[in-house]
Amino acid sequence: MQTRFDLTQADIPRQWYNLLADFPEPLPPPLHPGTKQPIPPEALLAIFPENLVQQEMCPHRHVEIPEEVREIYALWRPTPLLRAVRFEKALQTPAHIYYKYEGASPAGSHKVNTSVAQAYYNKVAGTKRLATETGAGQWGASLALACKLFGLECNVYMVKVSYQQKPYRRMLMHTWGATVHPSPSDQTDYGRKLMAEDPHCQGSLGIAISEAIEDTVKHPDTKYSLGSVLNHVCLHQTVIGLETLRQMEMAGEEPDAIIGCCGGGSNFAGLAFPFLQKKITEKKGYRIVGVEPSACPTLTQGDLRYDFGDTAEMTPLLMMYTLGHKFMPPSIHAGGLRYHGMSPMVSHALKLGLIEAEAYHQTKVFEQATLFARSEGIVPAPESAHAIAAVAEEAVKAREAGRKRVILFNLSGHGLLDLSAYETYLSGKLQDV
Amino acid sequence: MQTRFDLTQADIPRQWYNLLADFPEPLPPPLHPGTKQPIPPEALLAIFPENLVQQEMCPHRHVEIPEEVREIYALWRPTPLLRAVRFEKALQTPAHIYYKYEGASPAGSHKVNTSVAQAYYNKVAGTKRLATETGAGQWGASLALACKLFGLECNVYMVKVSYQQKPYRRMLMHTWGATVHPSPSDQTDYGRKLMAEDPHCQGSLGIAISEAIEDTVKHPDTKYSLGSVLNHVCLHQTVIGLETLRQMEMAGEEPDAIIGCCGGGSNFAGLAFPFLQKKITEKKGYRIVGVEPSACPTLTQGDLRYDFGDTAEMTPLLMMYTLGHKFMPPSIHAGGLRYHGMSPMVSHALKLGLIEAEAYHQTKVFEQATLFARSEGIVPAPESAHAIAAVAEEAVKAREAGRKRVILFNLSGHGLLDLSAYETYLSGKLQDV
Repeated sequence: MQTRFDLTQADIPRQWYNLLADFPEPLPPPLHPGTKQPIPPEALLAIFPENLVQQEMCPHRHVEIPEEVREIYALWRPTPLLRAVRFEKALQTPAHIYYKYEGASPAGSHKVNTSVAQAYYNKVAGTKRLATETGAGQWGASLALACKLFGLECNVYMVKVSYQQKPYRRMLMHTWGATVHPSPSDQTDYGRKLMAEDPHCQGSLGIAISEAIEDTVKHPDTKYSLGSVLNHVCLHQTVIGLETLRQMEMAGEEPDAIIGCCGGGSNFAGLAFPFLQKKITEKKGYRIVGVEPSACPTLTQGDLRYDFGDTAEMTPLLMMYTLGHKFMPPSIHAGGLRYHGMSPMVSHALKLGLIEAEAYHQTKVFEQATLFARSEGIVPAPESAHAIAAVAEEAVKAREAGRKRVILFNLSGHGLLDLSAYETYLSGKLQDV
Repeated sequence: MQTRFDLTQADIPRQWYNLLADFPEPLPPPLHPGTKQPIPPEALLAIFPENLVQQEMCPHRHVEIPEEVREIYALWRPTPLLRAVRFEKALQTPAHIYYKYEGASPAGSHKVNTSVAQAYYNKVAGTKRLATETGAGQWGASLALACKLFGLECNVYMVKVSYQQKPYRRMLMHTWGATVHPSPSDQTDYGRKLMAEDPHCQGSLGIAISEAIEDTVKHPDTKYSLGSVLNHVCLHQTVIGLETLRQMEMAGEEPDAIIGCCGGGSNFAGLAFPFLQKKITEKKGYRIVGVEPSACPTLTQGDLRYDFGDTAEMTPLLMMYTLGHKFMPPSIHAGGLRYHGMSPMVSHALKLGLIEAEAYHQTKVFEQATLFARSEGIVPAPESAHAIAAVAEEAVKAREAGRKRVILFNLSGHGLLDLSAYETYLSGKLQDV
């Protein structure tokens, strides 16, 4: 029986898909925090190169993928689509479960799909150095690799608690030649201020973003790079869904439910947006679900309003579901899902009723992720494991209803550098917060 | 330009290739340590199931891969063949460098190719429980996964120093449901004896093998499983080379040099043996090179003679290159290459002049592995990195001679759980021993 659906290098998409062109209502624009007026593109040039600012506001449905980027994608793309027949059996479900696997990339997740594109556009624009933040290190590592491939310097502010507790991803960034600072750091005014107020401050993603932006505006030839949330990041990730559309055709099935985990929204967008196009333009009845942790329930409990992307209020205001930019999520193992806000595009899709959202506690998440690892082999990243919890619930419902359902999800990364979370779960010490 | 050559699920080989059928001289048989006579197959039944004993001595050129094994192979196979155009550029070489990448498997290396086959044959034979040893944990993790997929218990003796210093691979074994003991342990007479003699004994692979064998003979329904060295292990790994033969055809090139790292010999055998068949039967002029660490130079400095596979002298005597079964290799980062002996089949091929061997110091190895990671993305496992050191030398020779050469190597695993070795290298603290 065919359980994997592989494409070849020639099938790597030549264009990204831009959902902005197909939204039934236009996306509310980012606002200047001072004037509360739509921010002019020029105002973003302090931190982003012009070509990416244009892409952020691009009205076109398709955007050419530069050949230099496609060539690097070929180091790990096309990624496989697999049918999880052993997981289906473990769940005793009549549902067919398919997963797109992004974990075979050198960095172990989907993040490199956009880091490579961003490094390319910065290189073309004359940028010499990129600054960014990272939580658990998935994004920092992905940007470190992309910068090395395009000959850019990479300066990463890593949330201090992760810097100390996740040494492997820090080492991975070093191996790819990046400079990594624990945040809050002594590299920025904001970091020094926080350190003076509380020398034991463990940091947060919002703080690290503020430091990376300050670093950017104070250094010549430096731009800022963000690993999720923004429109151009979601755009770059659509290679995932575009490949998957073809692979589901090869499998001869149409998904009933399409599921991805949501932190900033980019891996979810990557899989879902090309299917959303068909839902909007061809009236396909897909159920499309973003899954978040109950400990950071942005989509299910947040407000839809303009808010800052960072803690120090340095970013433009974005219209998004948010828990408030001062919200400090409790410590959970899915570090990549601990963000107070959500991609404006994903937020807009939820507001328009095009997608749904669910939240899961981490004990349930690790229970299903362990079952998945023991039936399909791959140990899922804690973030991706949230999607698996929702998949399992959908599959069990199909069993109870006696209905065949086709469920598709994005296995956005592997958890080989997150095994201590599994150890905590297996020893019975994992708690919901 | 095409740089990757992907096969589909239907291309997963249906038969393994058995080099025993094509050796110009027969392989010397294993001997009983007491009688010094060829060991009868029945004598091996205490630790291996009958079907694997038959496979160990199988005279046939091709062995059917059971459909249940092929279905599990499809979780990560076929693996890609890539041309390393960025590494070529970094080395400024006219050589074309191809690598077969086995690191995208759930366990991160080629080891699952045989663990799955061994678990299958044991399951068929009625085995309920497997015992094994592991050094850095690559093999233990691979057998843990295979046992879980076939519903067998898995009991792993892990060299104590690795158990303490490599917690992630231990956690990976737990995630896949195995029981893991630091070796020497209190589970066996041999372990207890060593602990009484030296409570601080850090263990070795030879000791852990002895414990796993003792565990096997003392428990009902338990068999022993070895991750390298033996003929049936090399046989299972030939899926690597069989896929690569087709992929090199797709690339339209024939390799001049074929390179793999050598610990027990299985990943080298996996890539090399199908090419060796063509070298023997079609007189192809391939240069085939096994690469080992200078700190454990079995092929380049060892003697070819009958020796034990373990420290406690419990195994049959094998005709192989060996540094002596009491040899304790110095601590190096490529834990998987710290074995005193070598696969008898690989040893025989070297004796017959069919292959060559080279040894490299680890500073040179990590220098080239870091260059590879920074040009191709993937961070190589320290073991696989030995092959890369030899590839780089071959590529530089091609540059100096102004000759195009086609170099093929096996990138047998990724190094995401070995990043502390890279950190040591990058901080200038790595030393040759």
